[in-house]
Amino acid sequence: MKTTPLIRNSNSPIGMFDSGVGGLTLLKSIKRILPNEQLIYFGDTARLPYGTKSPKVVQNFSLQIAKFLVGFKIKSLVIACHTASSAALSNLKIKLDIPVIGVIEPSAQKAVTTTKNQKIGVIGTKTTIESGSYQSFIQKINPKISITTVAAPLLVPLVEEGWVNKGATRIILKEYVAPFKKAQIDTLILGCTHYPLIKQLFRRELGPKVFLIDASIETALYLKKLLNKKSLINNGISTPDYRFYVSDDPDKFSRLAQIFLGEKIEAVKPVDLENWGY
Amino acid sequence: MKTTPLIRNSNSPIGMFDSGVGGLTLLKSIKRILPNEQLIYFGDTARLPYGTKSPKVVQNFSLQIAKFLVGFKIKSLVIACHTASSAALSNLKIKLDIPVIGVIEPSAQKAVTTTKNQKIGVIGTKTTIESGSYQSFIQKINPKISITTVAAPLLVPLVEEGWVNKGATRIILKEYVAPFKKAQIDTLILGCTHYPLIKQLFRRELGPKVFLIDASIETALYLKKLLNKKSLINNGISTPDYRFYVSDDPDKFSRLAQIFLGEKIEAVKPVDLENWGY
Repeated sequence: MKTTPLIRNSNSPIGMFDSGVGGLTLLKSIKRILPNEQLIYFGDTARLPYGTKSPKVVQNFSLQIAKFLVGFKIKSLVIACHTASSAALSNLKIKLDIPVIGVIEPSAQKAVTTTKNQKIGVIGTKTTIESGSYQSFIQKINPKISITTVAAPLLVPLVEEGWVNKGATRIILKEYVAPFKKAQIDTLILGCTHYPLIKQLFRRELGPKVFLIDASIETALYLKKLLNKKSLINNGISTPDYRFYVSDDPDKFSRLAQIFLGEKIEAVKPVDLENWGY
Repeated sequence: MKTTPLIRNSNSPIGMFDSGVGGLTLLKSIKRILPNEQLIYFGDTARLPYGTKSPKVVQNFSLQIAKFLVGFKIKSLVIACHTASSAALSNLKIKLDIPVIGVIEPSAQKAVTTTKNQKIGVIGTKTTIESGSYQSFIQKINPKISITTVAAPLLVPLVEEGWVNKGATRIILKEYVAPFKKAQIDTLILGCTHYPLIKQLFRRELGPKVFLIDASIETALYLKKLLNKKSLINNGISTPDYRFYVSDDPDKFSRLAQIFLGEKIEAVKPVDLENWGY
């Protein structure tokens, strides 16, 4: 890190990043659960998606972004992307001197306390599933739990294209969830930022008895607990503030953001990370 | 350009690039139509896809890759990606002192000479269609031609997932081609490297009377004509040679390459373009 040591306190902002807009579902939960916080969000829209890229490449991208965010004197870093959490969390924890959290552990913990029949399902991108992160987090807590995993690479483009209510999406989803039905899971981790947007489709396919875990809520609660423990919760003296940076077109991000955040985002700034000069 | 002027002759290699593996369909055609040539292929697998990115970002990526390829003393640069051809061709033509060709012009020329009812369809990625490149190339040749365009962002992930023969793909394709049927086109440009792999699905939806234009064949023929004109066709003294560079995992590229090239690729080398040092 080129940055010199910075003074951080409870009024410092929280940094968070995702491969694109998907992490805004987590930002929305953090806004609700930690309403006094200042948030700085980075979406790597020039290089998305991460879910099909190798762990090494995702690690490199994540480190670049972390370096950029650390420049804002952030008090904590939240990895909003499941793929980046799988590939880069442990590396970033070593490299940064602030608390770093991802979305995997909070969702895994919730799943373990939720399941009654000890059968959990995880659906995510290829890189997330192949990394085995969810599997190892769950089995660290309870090795007796049986885990069924499915990589679902087509769901992200379908959600981003707004094909949520189309027949093709239903057919594709039916195929993806078939292994969960067969395994009779009672808890499913929606292991990608985009999936909570089609929660109702999952509900329809799996029935009302399967508990669906939305990582954005679990991670926001986890973050609150962590900040509390470290006396870093914002005391509310400063005004809550949300800033957005992206590596591709800010206008496109603003438009897509509405789907994920349910409100308009103004003042999104473009950043050329590759020529950013660290 | 940091590179000093280099001596290029007919024995020099041809450089080509794509956002990923798709450009291998063009490499296959070039191998067949120009069998003596040495080819150096770059696939930007760490940052793919290009089809949803902004023209400015695609231009930046293309220029980075062009600089890398120029270091191999290439005699000509072929942009195998439709999106990059749309966004970056004119810029690269200005910046490089070697002939640069894209896939748009050859396909547009072929479409204009093929159509009998003066109704052409173009299907491609969002960025390709929104750029208006095909439209302007076609109308420059014949302003009376009516053009119907469709952006089909879901086809690339479907092809890459191998969902070619699934019901969902057929439903999605049916929706995409509906405007072409309505407009009664007699010629369709398959404006993305991945689409020739589902040519038979297009054929089934559109019937035998619609002529399907495969850019890879047209571009290889165009390249041959260009090299011939400039006396740059390889005389066959050196051994034909194919080298592959990618920005993400070489093994994944090798595996996917088989779908596009129909043969195994050995010796794919990874390149970290962002830290490549120009």
